[in-house]
Amino acid sequence: MRREDDAMREETLEGICAPIAEDLGRVDEFLRREVASRDPFIGELLAHVGRFRGKRIRPALVLLAGRALGRLGAAHVEVGGIVELIHTATLVHDDVLDDAGLRRRSATIHARWGERAAILLGDFLYSRAFALATRVDGAARILSDATHTICEGELLQVSRAHRPDLPEAEYLDIIAKKTGALYAVACRLGAQLAGADGVAEGLARFGERIGIAFQIVDDCLDIAGDEREVGKSLGTDLKKGKVTLPVIRFLARLGDADRRRVEGLLRRPLAGEEERTLAREIIASGTVEDARSEAKAFVEEALAVLAQIGDPALRTPLERLARFIARRRF
Amino acid sequence: MRREDDAMREETLEGICAPIAEDLGRVDEFLRREVASRDPFIGELLAHVGRFRGKRIRPALVLLAGRALGRLGAAHVEVGGIVELIHTATLVHDDVLDDAGLRRRSATIHARWGERAAILLGDFLYSRAFALATRVDGAARILSDATHTICEGELLQVSRAHRPDLPEAEYLDIIAKKTGALYAVACRLGAQLAGADGVAEGLARFGERIGIAFQIVDDCLDIAGDEREVGKSLGTDLKKGKVTLPVIRFLARLGDADRRRVEGLLRRPLAGEEERTLAREIIASGTVEDARSEAKAFVEEALAVLAQIGDPALRTPLERLARFIARRRF
Repeated sequence: MRREDDAMREETLEGICAPIAEDLGRVDEFLRREVASRDPFIGELLAHVGRFRGKRIRPALVLLAGRALGRLGAAHVEVGGIVELIHTATLVHDDVLDDAGLRRRSATIHARWGERAAILLGDFLYSRAFALATRVDGAARILSDATHTICEGELLQVSRAHRPDLPEAEYLDIIAKKTGALYAVACRLGAQLAGADGVAEGLARFGERIGIAFQIVDDCLDIAGDEREVGKSLGTDLKKGKVTLPVIRFLARLGDADRRRVEGLLRRPLAGEEERTLAREIIASGTVEDARSEAKAFVEEALAVLAQIGDPALRTPLERLARFIARRRF
Repeated sequence: MRREDDAMREETLEGICAPIAEDLGRVDEFLRREVASRDPFIGELLAHVGRFRGKRIRPALVLLAGRALGRLGAAHVEVGGIVELIHTATLVHDDVLDDAGLRRRSATIHARWGERAAILLGDFLYSRAFALATRVDGAARILSDATHTICEGELLQVSRAHRPDLPEAEYLDIIAKKTGALYAVACRLGAQLAGADGVAEGLARFGERIGIAFQIVDDCLDIAGDEREVGKSLGTDLKKGKVTLPVIRFLARLGDADRRRVEGLLRRPLAGEEERTLAREIIASGTVEDARSEAKAFVEEALAVLAQIGDPALRTPLERLARFIARRRF
């Protein structure tokens, strides 16, 4: 009985992160201390975005990478916080871009305080992240380059919206940039700060692959997820003409007439009911599960890279975290 | 005759910047080379924002400060470019915030490519600026801190919108942050990169004061400027309930009944005609010229600080630039 309970617990994110639970607490402390304002209005905004912190997968990667390589120190906590801060800034701006009302079961900044506050708060968080990064040797350049890559990926995605002919390779390139890049630097810096420069490149590759997997799953959840379970606004991709993996594969399976009809839908913004109907069609076609298998394949690739690195016993949580990413339903 | 022509020319920005004309050219080159993309869409956006570069006062300050202290090198060109890049990023986001259609006689990014592209392009420029800053010794921390201060100032301003009781001291604190901070670091880094750490603090103070003066003049132009001459959308402050110096002083001059009426107007967004009527009332009251005198006083304060620093002959262009800022009509 006890052994089964343990196995169950290990499958949850909390269980996977148990070996670094204290350090994750230090990341939260670091962010509370270093991202603050004496102004009550800004303080209110910061307290609110604090609630968006949920899975904390990116800081966990920094910490677990350091631990796997035998040295987990104060700089890991700082970089974990900075990576989470950059992620939070992208979320705040994403919610404006997607006109989303809900994030982690709370109102988005944009929905509650308006677009102006949301844009400026995102900038405020980005610039604070960069300022904090300059305190950690070697981190500022890597983190600002990664952030630049994220923005490039997001810009590419905006420019490819409403283009149902988006090739799968281009989709993968975009998500490698917009999501893979931050996962990659989390792992890279986790290794570098542990003094393991020799394996930093390999860990970055591991991170990029699971970042891609994370985004594919995110794109699946946007079509087939349960808003109450996921805790954020869903269905925005189809509404905004964002062509993601399940959609690309769905289009490829359709006959000419059907494909032309769906391509027509994707070329313009969709209303709520249209989006639900199209989403149901895509789910019925099986391409959401198909895309999830692709995410699993990226995780397997990541695991193959990881198998060459570090202490087998110590890298177990990284492996579990990678598998969790492909499996997650929220 | 010739001497008079020379004097006239020296009064223009071009004339003032003549001693650093070549270096300003290098700043442009640096930005063209370092802020680029292979993607045609991103390339198009970058080419477009390139047109927003106009007065280039901030890079001029970096260069002139270096020159005044006897050493103007390649790092000054880089920091000049980075400071201009940060400024450009704030403009791109400002235009979304202000819903402005016109910038430097061109369509804004937001008006032509939509809000999504504008928000992401701003982020793209910010992150590139930080990445470039990490290449210059000691610049990254100072520049990211300054950017954070700018965002703080902008957030404070947003939170104080539609509040006609804004005290003058709070207005000055906000513009010291949102505009003074970047002017201050331009001057500070200009000195530091010339190896003149001892006067960096003084030059930063000079920069902050002329930055405040610049913003007061900007706020005056928003009410009383000529859109064709200034080349950007005007009248947005009153429309969006932004309470600036001419407005604060105008309110102070009104009798109770009139003040209550105007305060009522400022508490809600104004339509174009309402804005024009209120602007005419403010202009007629003389508080726009009054605010311009205040800007001149800040410039005088800046000049008093500058008088203690550097070679009197070499600092002349900085003095002229400071005077130009209080005088400008565009």
